[in-house]
Amino acid sequence: MAHDVRTAALAAREAADILALTTRAAKDAALVAMAGALVARTPEIVKANDEDVARGRVAGFSEALLDRLALTEARVGAIAAGLRQVAGLPDPVGEVVRGSTLPNGLELRQVRVPFGVVGIIYEARPNVTVDAAGLCLKSGNAALLRGSSSARSSNAALVEVLRDALAAQGLPADAVQLLDAESRESVHELMRARGLVDVLIPRGGADLIRTVVEGSTVPVIETGVGNCHIYVDADADLDMALRILLNAKTQRPSVCNAAESLLVHAAVAEEFLAKALPALADAGVTVHADPAVFAGAVAVTDEDFGTEYLSLDLSAAVVDSLDAAVRHIKVYGTGHSEAIITRSQAAARAFTARVDAAAVLVNASTRFTDGEEFGFGAEIGISTQKLHARGPMGLPELTSTKYVVTGDGHIR
Amino acid sequence: MAHDVRTAALAAREAADILALTTRAAKDAALVAMAGALVARTPEIVKANDEDVARGRVAGFSEALLDRLALTEARVGAIAAGLRQVAGLPDPVGEVVRGSTLPNGLELRQVRVPFGVVGIIYEARPNVTVDAAGLCLKSGNAALLRGSSSARSSNAALVEVLRDALAAQGLPADAVQLLDAESRESVHELMRARGLVDVLIPRGGADLIRTVVEGSTVPVIETGVGNCHIYVDADADLDMALRILLNAKTQRPSVCNAAESLLVHAAVAEEFLAKALPALADAGVTVHADPAVFAGAVAVTDEDFGTEYLSLDLSAAVVDSLDAAVRHIKVYGTGHSEAIITRSQAAARAFTARVDAAAVLVNASTRFTDGEEFGFGAEIGISTQKLHARGPMGLPELTSTKYVVTGDGHIR
Repeated sequence: MAHDVRTAALAAREAADILALTTRAAKDAALVAMAGALVARTPEIVKANDEDVARGRVAGFSEALLDRLALTEARVGAIAAGLRQVAGLPDPVGEVVRGSTLPNGLELRQVRVPFGVVGIIYEARPNVTVDAAGLCLKSGNAALLRGSSSARSSNAALVEVLRDALAAQGLPADAVQLLDAESRESVHELMRARGLVDVLIPRGGADLIRTVVEGSTVPVIETGVGNCHIYVDADADLDMALRILLNAKTQRPSVCNAAESLLVHAAVAEEFLAKALPALADAGVTVHADPAVFAGAVAVTDEDFGTEYLSLDLSAAVVDSLDAAVRHIKVYGTGHSEAIITRSQAAARAFTARVDAAAVLVNASTRFTDGEEFGFGAEIGISTQKLHARGPMGLPELTSTKYVVTGDGHIR
Repeated sequence: MAHDVRTAALAAREAADILALTTRAAKDAALVAMAGALVARTPEIVKANDEDVARGRVAGFSEALLDRLALTEARVGAIAAGLRQVAGLPDPVGEVVRGSTLPNGLELRQVRVPFGVVGIIYEARPNVTVDAAGLCLKSGNAALLRGSSSARSSNAALVEVLRDALAAQGLPADAVQLLDAESRESVHELMRARGLVDVLIPRGGADLIRTVVEGSTVPVIETGVGNCHIYVDADADLDMALRILLNAKTQRPSVCNAAESLLVHAAVAEEFLAKALPALADAGVTVHADPAVFAGAVAVTDEDFGTEYLSLDLSAAVVDSLDAAVRHIKVYGTGHSEAIITRSQAAARAFTARVDAAAVLVNASTRFTDGEEFGFGAEIGISTQKLHARGPMGLPELTSTKYVVTGDGHIR
């Protein structure tokens, strides 16, 4: 494990220079070798993970958190399968994004190139370590991984396996490096490593992301906080609306594309809530709303409307118009995923045009905002910023471009 | 002129909401009206500009600087023509960047949308005020302009004309706002207006850009510092190399894509320098290099190699190999534009693959790295960062995207 971020970043830059010129065939062979090594060395990975789980149990982690931390033989197998899947995806590097011959005969090509060194700061789940390393390798980037201290033994074991496999394939082991998870200093140093680290991707809770976004001089891609709304329009198919609401709220409440807030048009509120409130209660959902309108609800506060619960809680309100729904989302939304349920073409068109978010969904669950679901094959995170990438980020989002201009003595 | 950045940014957000939904026809009509108003009100613009020029003269500005600051009837006409040209360019907003129907029948479209509010911090030349306002309007963005205090009267007059024209066309005047150019506080506030301002583009000297890049919590697009190299390879056509070197260094030395440094392969150094040194001297170029090799040169320092002169100065060195040239550029380059002169396909391929810059040119002058030259029709600046945009930025680079996902009751 690298204890000095600057030393690690310098080594990563050297590795990145080699990766940028490495062929797809060599990168894919390394990904497959990494997958094979993970499977072959599963016992030592699970053993290291046992230490993390034991420490977590002593520290009083919830069963849900312990479950997210735990690695079994089957889970390591699934992580390895993810690497093989990345090997099968197209290589973004070298793609000619646009090209033309200029009037003076100069040939212009805009070509995808790797960023260079990508820093990733993330929490809890050890599978992110391997996913991120694989996506960075495929896109020609060296990865500096700063995981959570609660997964430090697992991450160290996983990274050792990956580095050994890289070296055995003749690629630089320093393409994947794990930074000290126990010092907060390593996060701070990573944030100030402008010129050494090309981009920083924080993945985790709102506090982590805010810290990185506000304190970093390295360019950041902001990810993941999702206060996602379901707006049930006056013209909604109410049965469809209920199916989508229950799916978006309850299918996996702990993720960023789960719904956190319900807005119902006044014209259909009574009819919809008569069905929806018992169904939500049956599903174990606590509704935070005006109890005078939402029978059995907990009284809602302004803070509720701005909260990403990541649990079986849902804020809710009745709105007088689509316009009021859009304005509510403008105030409280985080620009992740916003859905309208409607049969009206005009309402769908107005909502998709006016709501400013990474994804705007019509008659579909917010849970579809996801790299796998969108067909990207893999995902490094979901960007909620407007610069560079917005929404689920696949391999092309881990690259920059370079203009290559060819002439035969052209001057101005 | 807006004296309070926060108030201006809030007004800009309101304007941006309207601009995002404004049709291309309405935006183009406004651009043409703005151009007409600039021409019609040229006398008051020139009069305001006279005040800036008079103040500049008292402050002891060089004749070159005064010339860049000055507006004449012809120059105002050229600025207006620029707006008409932008009106003729395709509207990036609404372009479907990619789209597909997913296996489950969900329809996915990634659509270009405006950023929202764009802040631009720039120096000296008042034409930037109009160019930036026009490009922002066409791309559906509200512009917060923080110009140089030396051009404050000109900028105020220009922005008043633009705002009047917008209002007369039924568009919000607050789509174009000028911030207080005399307080440094306005730059600082703009840099901290995260959530109100979507992106900040500094245009100017290296100090300004570094200040913004390091201090801003608003996402920044770094522009323009160009320490550009011409590498004369062992296999170069030396006559071509000299033509390109002279063009890149002397055609317009004050701009970021002018060459600042010459690297010559040892195998051709003697022959090339015998021609090049007298030609550079004739063109008034001062060469900073090892006088033992470069007859008549001023002794070079490490600092020279890292300097963007923006004048008729040129640092120079002999290198033993293409590899040494690439390593030199890696140490001293700013990732703007780097050129190789060679007849060798292998050398061209190695140089373009290994040099990490916004533009890598083969047998062409670095002066071609430019939005107009690249056929983009207009340019808001040249990005030297890897995130979001790299190289000349046209209208599409002033936009983000949004995923629109349409289903008929899809749940996971």
